[in-house]
Amino acid sequence: MQKIVYLDNNATTRVAPEVRDVMRPFFDELYGNPSSMHSFGGQVAKLLDRAREEVARFINAEPEEIVFTSCATESDNTAIRGTAEWYGRDLKVITTAVEHPAVLQPVRRLRAAGYETVELPVDGLGRLDLDALGRELASARGPKLVSAMWANNETGTVFPVGRIAEMCREHGAVFHTDAVQAAGKEKIDVKAAGIDMLSMSGHKFHAPKGIGILFVRKGVKLKPFMLGGHQEKTRRAGTENVPYIMGIAKACELSRTGMEAENAEIAALRDRLEEGILASCPDVRVNGDRGHRLANTLNVSFEYVEGEAIAYRLSDLGICISTGSACASGSLDPSHVIRAMGVPFTAVHGSVRFSLSRYTTREEIDYVLEKLPPVIAELRRLSPFGPGDVVSGTLE
Amino acid sequence: MQKIVYLDNNATTRVAPEVRDVMRPFFDELYGNPSSMHSFGGQVAKLLDRAREEVARFINAEPEEIVFTSCATESDNTAIRGTAEWYGRDLKVITTAVEHPAVLQPVRRLRAAGYETVELPVDGLGRLDLDALGRELASARGPKLVSAMWANNETGTVFPVGRIAEMCREHGAVFHTDAVQAAGKEKIDVKAAGIDMLSMSGHKFHAPKGIGILFVRKGVKLKPFMLGGHQEKTRRAGTENVPYIMGIAKACELSRTGMEAENAEIAALRDRLEEGILASCPDVRVNGDRGHRLANTLNVSFEYVEGEAIAYRLSDLGICISTGSACASGSLDPSHVIRAMGVPFTAVHGSVRFSLSRYTTREEIDYVLEKLPPVIAELRRLSPFGPGDVVSGTLE
Repeated sequence: MQKIVYLDNNATTRVAPEVRDVMRPFFDELYGNPSSMHSFGGQVAKLLDRAREEVARFINAEPEEIVFTSCATESDNTAIRGTAEWYGRDLKVITTAVEHPAVLQPVRRLRAAGYETVELPVDGLGRLDLDALGRELASARGPKLVSAMWANNETGTVFPVGRIAEMCREHGAVFHTDAVQAAGKEKIDVKAAGIDMLSMSGHKFHAPKGIGILFVRKGVKLKPFMLGGHQEKTRRAGTENVPYIMGIAKACELSRTGMEAENAEIAALRDRLEEGILASCPDVRVNGDRGHRLANTLNVSFEYVEGEAIAYRLSDLGICISTGSACASGSLDPSHVIRAMGVPFTAVHGSVRFSLSRYTTREEIDYVLEKLPPVIAELRRLSPFGPGDVVSGTLE
Repeated sequence: MQKIVYLDNNATTRVAPEVRDVMRPFFDELYGNPSSMHSFGGQVAKLLDRAREEVARFINAEPEEIVFTSCATESDNTAIRGTAEWYGRDLKVITTAVEHPAVLQPVRRLRAAGYETVELPVDGLGRLDLDALGRELASARGPKLVSAMWANNETGTVFPVGRIAEMCREHGAVFHTDAVQAAGKEKIDVKAAGIDMLSMSGHKFHAPKGIGILFVRKGVKLKPFMLGGHQEKTRRAGTENVPYIMGIAKACELSRTGMEAENAEIAALRDRLEEGILASCPDVRVNGDRGHRLANTLNVSFEYVEGEAIAYRLSDLGICISTGSACASGSLDPSHVIRAMGVPFTAVHGSVRFSLSRYTTREEIDYVLEKLPPVIAELRRLSPFGPGDVVSGTLE
């Protein structure tokens, strides 16, 4: 089998061996239902409590503020639609143009249902327009919900969530943040940052696909999204996914204890990749805010080539990267994030994302730096476009 | 460690070793995102297609009619609320008084939002009042949704879903069935039965907790419930829970090939348990429709004692059973199913459920038959109630 260099960790990650091991007994030994009356189920309920405590510790929350969901998409839907159901049509919903579809789509469904919604713009580095946020907050008289991501999945740009939370507090708005890409990469302290609701996804930091978290600060009002049984104190119906809950708790513990040291190594490898690409490929631009960016993410635009073509060629060489986000695949439109940043047309289509993890090695980065430049050069030779075809002068 | 006799399989089941084994590589080898552009993710997408085919085969559906969800609660919420969002307030929603909370709660939220809803009654054996269904269908002029379970989780009573589907077709109603307890226990053929939508849950038939299925017949109209990315052809957003999808497909295959033989053995053991209890304990009644009942389920009421007390005593002896359903726990009310059947007060509180699986042995049943009668006799000695205290003459 071909050796795989996996640089698509913002799409999904490998389950950590420690996480896999901690889940194992819950499939065929400790399989009781935590809601059952018998002690065979009861022992599972106790372990579930401990997992909740570990997740709470990871983000400095209280255990009872942690709701387990099936994924961050569910967490986002719950936060946005649950708040809308609580407040009704008077609610104004403010979000940003660069959110994940799991936030944008629920907001757009609310708009179609008659709610007032706003998508705030970003600048060329993907930085949020805080003045626009201030104006939208000030002009709303009724209840307000702001949903702004902690860090962008495509560019790694980190929003100033503490400042956003402060502005929300000043105007009495509820503040939700999609922290899917921040979890395991940035230090999260919901108390210090003043967050009301926060979404996380297990599979973005080495727990499996199919488990999410919604933090809901005590006192925040919303209606449950998933209706049925009394699980999660009637905040999320459905039998608990016990193995994955144990798994995500372990992933939180691993990140809590190892993140700082890991991040330094990951950032060094990412910088090595960035410098190597800039040195070896002409007509390249780095997308995003390099001063406020996730340690593991590098988004670059290669002018005059298609990102899809780059990704396919690299895939043949065993290198996994992405264009835009995996969740937007199936659509042929270029990334809504890169477009919102006003990146020129010739560069939008040539944007690709490299995203590293704790398992990325220096050898892997050097392999990419060896293979990538000839791929770019060859694609440019085949391309119908070139510097001479550019009409506008907006290239940076 | 104490030996466990697990007779609570309608609450949850042990993951089959075959299912556990099939999931294993998808945690730390084949962890790619099926929506990714690279072949490392693409190979997972192909395996996901095969899993979808296996699930479709299990219920005689087309692969593109299968939507993977996080649990049957989500499947039920999607079917009911997605249909309501499609048709709007003109929709009349007809369900039954004995549904799982995952159906009843969404229907009640629709009622609170102004929809017309009906909960059909059942008789003393838990059989649906089909005349009432016919009247409710006939009296509705606009679009109609009927949600009626295939088999009851507490009593095992099987509804005539083929006949219900026929009545729905005659009146142009959409028919959804919660088949959570039927999957792996009854032969399901959605084409022969004429079903429009059907919910299943992995953990009720030896796949893990946290994976569900919603069958949606081609042409049935509903809006997606989980909004975000393009997964599941935009019918269910959220990165696919690949390991569990492989697991539930394996569980479907095991049931498809083994169910008939297993069911004969399970029914024989269940009947042995039922006859043994009736022979050794006075003042016992079997709840449900013994002529149309799941092979694995036995619900009995012991007069003058509390079901909770029985369950706790048996738990101390390593025997796992339940009162009502695990999903209703946390509420102190007696089972809404048993009450809807008009079971007398002195028996309602003493109802318990034994539910068997392919892993149940004759030795386990005989152990229960040895331990149970003295427990009942002792609890009755301690009980403040007794035959002399019964005022009404409704005991059967």
